Amino acid sequence: MRNTALVLLWIGLSALLFAQAPGRGRGPAQPPSYTVNPDRTVTFHLRAPEATAVTVSGDFAQTPQAMTKADDGTWSFTTAALRPAIYDYTFSIDGFRANDPSNPLLKSGDRTTSTMFEVKGDQPAPYDIQPVPHGAVRIEYYVSKKFEAPRMIWVYTPPGYETSKGRYPALYLLHGAGDTEAGWVTIGHANLIMDNLIAEGKAKPMIVVMPYGRPGPSATLGPAAPAPVAEPGVIFPNDLIEDVIPFAEKTYRISAKADDRAIAGLSMGGNQTLQIGLNHPDTFHYIGAFSPVVINPEQAFKNALADPKGTNQKLKLFYIYIGKLDTLFASNQSFDQLLTEHQIRHTFVQSEEWHVWRNWRDYFADFAPRLFR
Amino acid sequence: MRNTALVLLWIGLSALLFAQAPGRGRGPAQPPSYTVNPDRTVTFHLRAPEATAVTVSGDFAQTPQAMTKADDGTWSFTTAALRPAIYDYTFSIDGFRANDPSNPLLKSGDRTTSTMFEVKGDQPAPYDIQPVPHGAVRIEYYVSKKFEAPRMIWVYTPPGYETSKGRYPALYLLHGAGDTEAGWVTIGHANLIMDNLIAEGKAKPMIVVMPYGRPGPSATLGPAAPAPVAEPGVIFPNDLIEDVIPFAEKTYRISAKADDRAIAGLSMGGNQTLQIGLNHPDTFHYIGAFSPVVINPEQAFKNALADPKGTNQKLKLFYIYIGKLDTLFASNQSFDQLLTEHQIRHTFVQSEEWHVWRNWRDYFADFAPRLFR
Repeated sequence: MRNTALVLLWIGLSALLFAQAPGRGRGPAQPPSYTVNPDRTVTFHLRAPEATAVTVSGDFAQTPQAMTKADDGTWSFTTAALRPAIYDYTFSIDGFRANDPSNPLLKSGDRTTSTMFEVKGDQPAPYDIQPVPHGAVRIEYYVSKKFEAPRMIWVYTPPGYETSKGRYPALYLLHGAGDTEAGWVTIGHANLIMDNLIAEGKAKPMIVVMPYGRPGPSATLGPAAPAPVAEPGVIFPNDLIEDVIPFAEKTYRISAKADDRAIAGLSMGGNQTLQIGLNHPDTFHYIGAFSPVVINPEQAFKNALADPKGTNQKLKLFYIYIGKLDTLFASNQSFDQLLTEHQIRHTFVQSEEWHVWRNWRDYFADFAPRLFR
Repeated sequence: MRNTALVLLWIGLSALLFAQAPGRGRGPAQPPSYTVNPDRTVTFHLRAPEATAVTVSGDFAQTPQAMTKADDGTWSFTTAALRPAIYDYTFSIDGFRANDPSNPLLKSGDRTTSTMFEVKGDQPAPYDIQPVPHGAVRIEYYVSKKFEAPRMIWVYTPPGYETSKGRYPALYLLHGAGDTEAGWVTIGHANLIMDNLIAEGKAKPMIVVMPYGRPGPSATLGPAAPAPVAEPGVIFPNDLIEDVIPFAEKTYRISAKADDRAIAGLSMGGNQTLQIGLNHPDTFHYIGAFSPVVINPEQAFKNALADPKGTNQKLKLFYIYIGKLDTLFASNQSFDQLLTEHQIRHTFVQSEEWHVWRNWRDYFADFAPRLFR
């Protein structure tokens, strides 16, 4: 009798053991709503028998793709063959935008979330975790006087940092408008890219400081405040220079020399990178703008443009990366020409891509090895 | 002419500046789909004109709540007044489970994601960020021999750790079945709870090590492997004892004495806590089981039960917390009685709640101050 009760208890509790919330009645978890096929096409499949129109969107295609409904109420769509990379996707179900709630690979931003899948290649990608020494990523809190809010910074420290004594060069790495301070790690795998580059001897061990570039508290401390458009050009640069860098240099063993300090960022963060980097040539000697938003460059960078000799003497590296299919391509091309006209030394790298994360992982893997040489 | 072009460029690019992916055509981001009202009720509102049935589920109510459709195609539901806490919610739209894609406060698990909101009280909560010194949270990678996979550990280091020299006591803190190694920070705010307790002088500065308790690589390194039910009782304890603790003690200045080592966990992690803690009395002298899954305790803990004197001598603290409305309450009550019958010294704390995260934040805030005294 007692044994029977125990067996029943065992069976019952075993079933509960993997339920996040026993009694919540949510039913079993579903597998993610995609399958990567051997030919590197990807099939999305979603059960929504009542829906009349379902699409899937993401950076695997430039427009939303209509899904097809089968008799059993399942919708599906298969992509073209995709190059090995990490992609994102969301569904629209009768106009309701939904990410894949059963996929733990989140592309979480400061206002929206989507989900990600990876198409593996024959070789490990630069952003894949490998059996190499791993650095750590630290989530730090600081109080921003400029933003009048507690904010978070993610910081990569390279393998061996804990046990070494010396100071390290630092890269300040800025996210895009929809991302957060976590984006370069959780979406970009910047830490794993650094681990792999360092293990191969291709990049110098460095500290990578990833602040939050929008107003208000960081997204995971509460919903983001509405963002005035003028902000990225005004408040954030002061926050970075006056709050973030002093905090980082107080907390970590970072060399405070401009020859050991770099700045890079993507999209909105590329705009901030140019604003901050080109206007603080005594602070940063390395600049990397990945698919940057370029606004009124004659005015924004007038000091640097007016003094090409001084700018070129100070800047040891100035890279701009942009995809040919990016809607920002024309403005970046104009900026490239402007820099050339003013004889500002720089490298203009054009990819075949558009405004997507797989670019930025690639750009970072190309850019980081060039730093602090 | 040139000025006009520049102004147009400015306007056009300003509009792009806050778009995550120019050219993707996703439209503007929506605000989160809830409003916390002044009377601490919460109204959910969701636009889904084509849908025929929409519900909202979460830990604010024990069952899914039907939403009501207005003529404009908007669905809404208002909760009862809620006590100040953090809650989660998901929608079901014609049977499709969706989290709120416009809310950055994610409750991300290893298989499913939901979204969270906070009902603020008149006073700051123990889990709110406060203007006090903050510790850091570090994301570490290690290779688990037991799981044959790279895995991630989140580690809280208290304020002052960087600049101090001494060794710290350590709490090994385990997540629930649906969560990941990140859950105690991103959902539980364990780091902010520790910051606040330390600032008030209520808890000793300690290192909190948060490993991943399920098989396979950590969720953010790839979709989780299917979990054999027997696993938590077999592989993970060995991983914790033989891989996690040595890694943590090598990487951080942690005291290696059992008097300075505690283990705690929630739900599945509460089960693991009991398995590991009660079966390794020379390793852990403090045990906290939060809403634990208790399976066959006579057998699972037969050594501890057979030697109450030895167990009581070693264990400096043994707390079990359970909500009276939890479906696990009866099994925990039986376990309490079993421990009492065997004269194992312990404290059995009953809350008025069920199997929900707001318990676990409360339990942690109650438990952490009792450690290492």
